[in-house]
Amino acid sequence: MHATPLAAIDPFHLPGIEHRTLAGAAQGLATLEVWHQSLDPGAATPPHSHDFDEVVVLLEGEAEVDEAGDLRRIAAPATVVLRAGRAHRIANVGTVAVRLVAAFAASPARARGPDGSLIPLPWEACETA
Amino acid sequence: MHATPLAAIDPFHLPGIEHRTLAGAAQGLATLEVWHQSLDPGAATPPHSHDFDEVVVLLEGEAEVDEAGDLRRIAAPATVVLRAGRAHRIANVGTVAVRLVAAFAASPARARGPDGSLIPLPWEACETA
Repeated sequence: MHATPLAAIDPFHLPGIEHRTLAGAAQGLATLEVWHQSLDPGAATPPHSHDFDEVVVLLEGEAEVDEAGDLRRIAAPATVVLRAGRAHRIANVGTVAVRLVAAFAASPARARGPDGSLIPLPWEACETA
Repeated sequence: MHATPLAAIDPFHLPGIEHRTLAGAAQGLATLEVWHQSLDPGAATPPHSHDFDEVVVLLEGEAEVDEAGDLRRIAAPATVVLRAGRAHRIANVGTVAVRLVAAFAASPARARGPDGSLIPLPWEACETA
């Protein structure tokens, strides 16, 4: 069994975002991947999409989620379903860190930019090596 | 976009366990399902398996996880990967509630008992109706 304390996973950083892959290809998974992310107040993910469905479990904080122009302000605890191929962006619009768990129906969970090209994610090089 | 506050989801109860399906077939998902569960101190899931992989994100509490005889005591925050077809059981061995998010690579996320037969889950009738 893979059992991993959160503190044992070194985080990766994007501007204002702390990312940990909790489980995925590195643990032998192909059809499931789970992330943990913290977003500082004011921080936002870049607009991106995935080729597979995503479920975001908002654990703490207040986020604005934009999925293909459908804009919602969502306070934790709450769940957001983001469908395959639809561009989305998650922004922390509150005053405390947003903490979330995101589950994906594929691993590695790659992301595409608005032009459809794959976005290089800083943690991919480590996980797919 | 499906965006659902946790409080808007009525829980189902098994002995000592409070279950909410955060996202799954009811939201149009077929290859991804996410649950939220709370286990009272001393409570445990029945032994069961799934035909697909599962990732458990332990948010709070202390659990004993048995996967096919591999027994671990795991304190939150931590992640556990449970592989398709392997029987597992999660018990709260601490003094506070165990709170977890579980992600599955299929929806509806059915469970099998030790004899391989499908376990009727109280929430299935509502979600697949």
